Amino acid sequence: MPAATRTTIAGIAAEVGVSVPTVSKVLNGRPDVAPATRALVEESIARHGYQRREAKGKRRSAPRLVELVFHEYGAPWAVEIIRGVEAVAGPARVGVVLSELGGEHRPRQEWLDDVLARRPLGVILVLSDLGAEQRRQLETRSIPFVVVDTAGEPPPGVPTVGSANWNGGLVATRHLLGLGHRRVAVISGPSDVMCSRARIDGYRSAFDEAGVPFDPELVRYGDFFVGGGYRHGRELLTRPDRPTAIFAGSDFQALGVLRAARELGLRVPEDLSVVGYDDLPMTEWIGPALTTVRQPLLEMASTATRIVLSLAEGEQPSNLRIDLATELIVRESTSAPPSI
Amino acid sequence: MPAATRTTIAGIAAEVGVSVPTVSKVLNGRPDVAPATRALVEESIARHGYQRREAKGKRRSAPRLVELVFHEYGAPWAVEIIRGVEAVAGPARVGVVLSELGGEHRPRQEWLDDVLARRPLGVILVLSDLGAEQRRQLETRSIPFVVVDTAGEPPPGVPTVGSANWNGGLVATRHLLGLGHRRVAVISGPSDVMCSRARIDGYRSAFDEAGVPFDPELVRYGDFFVGGGYRHGRELLTRPDRPTAIFAGSDFQALGVLRAARELGLRVPEDLSVVGYDDLPMTEWIGPALTTVRQPLLEMASTATRIVLSLAEGEQPSNLRIDLATELIVRESTSAPPSI
Repeated sequence: MPAATRTTIAGIAAEVGVSVPTVSKVLNGRPDVAPATRALVEESIARHGYQRREAKGKRRSAPRLVELVFHEYGAPWAVEIIRGVEAVAGPARVGVVLSELGGEHRPRQEWLDDVLARRPLGVILVLSDLGAEQRRQLETRSIPFVVVDTAGEPPPGVPTVGSANWNGGLVATRHLLGLGHRRVAVISGPSDVMCSRARIDGYRSAFDEAGVPFDPELVRYGDFFVGGGYRHGRELLTRPDRPTAIFAGSDFQALGVLRAARELGLRVPEDLSVVGYDDLPMTEWIGPALTTVRQPLLEMASTATRIVLSLAEGEQPSNLRIDLATELIVRESTSAPPSI
Repeated sequence: MPAATRTTIAGIAAEVGVSVPTVSKVLNGRPDVAPATRALVEESIARHGYQRREAKGKRRSAPRLVELVFHEYGAPWAVEIIRGVEAVAGPARVGVVLSELGGEHRPRQEWLDDVLARRPLGVILVLSDLGAEQRRQLETRSIPFVVVDTAGEPPPGVPTVGSANWNGGLVATRHLLGLGHRRVAVISGPSDVMCSRARIDGYRSAFDEAGVPFDPELVRYGDFFVGGGYRHGRELLTRPDRPTAIFAGSDFQALGVLRAARELGLRVPEDLSVVGYDDLPMTEWIGPALTTVRQPLLEMASTATRIVLSLAEGEQPSNLRIDLATELIVRESTSAPPSI
């Protein structure tokens, strides 16, 4: 295998038996190349470890963009992430292009083709992962990427910015146990998402630490949305042995739990303590003001943006995995359990 | 003055006494042109009514982008606007570039230069206006723009998408008067923003219609944020002749009013009725679920995106001003006034 630096577009064109502009088109995600040709070119690019390096002058004259990609759009915390990215990209005069992975209307390869065509400085993926093939396509075009809050175990070498989810689960549960609660339910995000699993493990550790057994029936996985919080909340709170506290996976889930409690005539915090997660701006305004685990979404997004821009400058970050601290914010929705 | 179609870049270069590439750089918002030269080129472009028309092939190969510009970032309803734009831009495989006008870190001309450099298909401005000079710069580059929810009176010829604000103010106030309220306060957005004024006029009309005088002391202008709702709410509710109902300018303002009421020991809706504005997803979940005026933010954004993309295709929209309907959604936060 020849050294990566010596492979050229012309060499790849010659090997595959196509023209140089055809190789360029593939590199730029252009649609006007036959799928079979394209596959051959991609295969040759990958085999040679080819990496495009832009001429300095050319790079500077092209529009400076970063791609911000959400797994699922319109999540309530998306606005915090967007603000965090803009806080760094704005002053650097880098445009932020938004998109969503996995939407029905935008198949994955089309999405990647569009990204390649825009030739961004870098890509920021939120709660989403690329396949190995897609990662390679970005790498061969020298487009760095960073994952914010990885869904699964991130592959080696991929920079990630997250927050201390395990610790968040621990401090929230410790707070509730410390108030005297024993029947503490937890509603987390999907079980295949890392941050959900880490929080549940933190919850378990708090029980272990206190020497109190926990009831596996009170551990629920769901989504991060308000409707899921409501449904799990109703189900948990209509049990004969209902919990006296619920630790929700997001502030919106907690909002659903609060509504379920209201409908069932349970007062918060007198009859039920509720802890949220995220500390969205609205949580201090709702009634009762929500005790929640602050997740520094804005800072996570700013950090990811700084990393991707420095990678674009050819710098290597000193740390590939950064987890920012989480913090328990105690407000009005938690208190000692009712004395029955 | 020669016919607009006959002016060329070469002609402008010759007239100003600069090279053709220099004129191109000015058209593309590139920073490497002396300000004085740039001003001369802009002046000549404007005087000749020059408009760049892209070669069809070139346009097609360039990344397809639209610019989405907020006056003020991170407003709670921004996510609805973004979802609406994405709903149209996503399936059309057009990238959405986000930015904010008026942030300290991004002076206006720098912002416009960056937009010109990205050569987008079009620009969508939310609650913000361009100056005459900036409008002309977009026009000469054949970059169409649409304003969503104009701040001021839009200049002739600029397509706008809004909602029936006057009607929203009317139906909300009619609802409260119909329940028997007489002391109805209104907290609106800034007095220099069209939608605030239209809603207050709707409020006044409802009073006129009912033959009831309104108290000008109960009419407040503020911002659309939660803190302003809280401050105005506290002030109104601590008056000796406090209102029995408050019509807020946004759901977040209403959240601030609800908190002020809670702190003062006033029950909603028994002691105080509250109406919000926007119908954000959270409003049906908070306690009490909020009566509010639904503003079709998502549809407004989708409509604006469709208009800007069809303008980019050279089509002329049949209607330059579109106002989508608003609708009163009655939930739990309004009832008859306390019988004192």
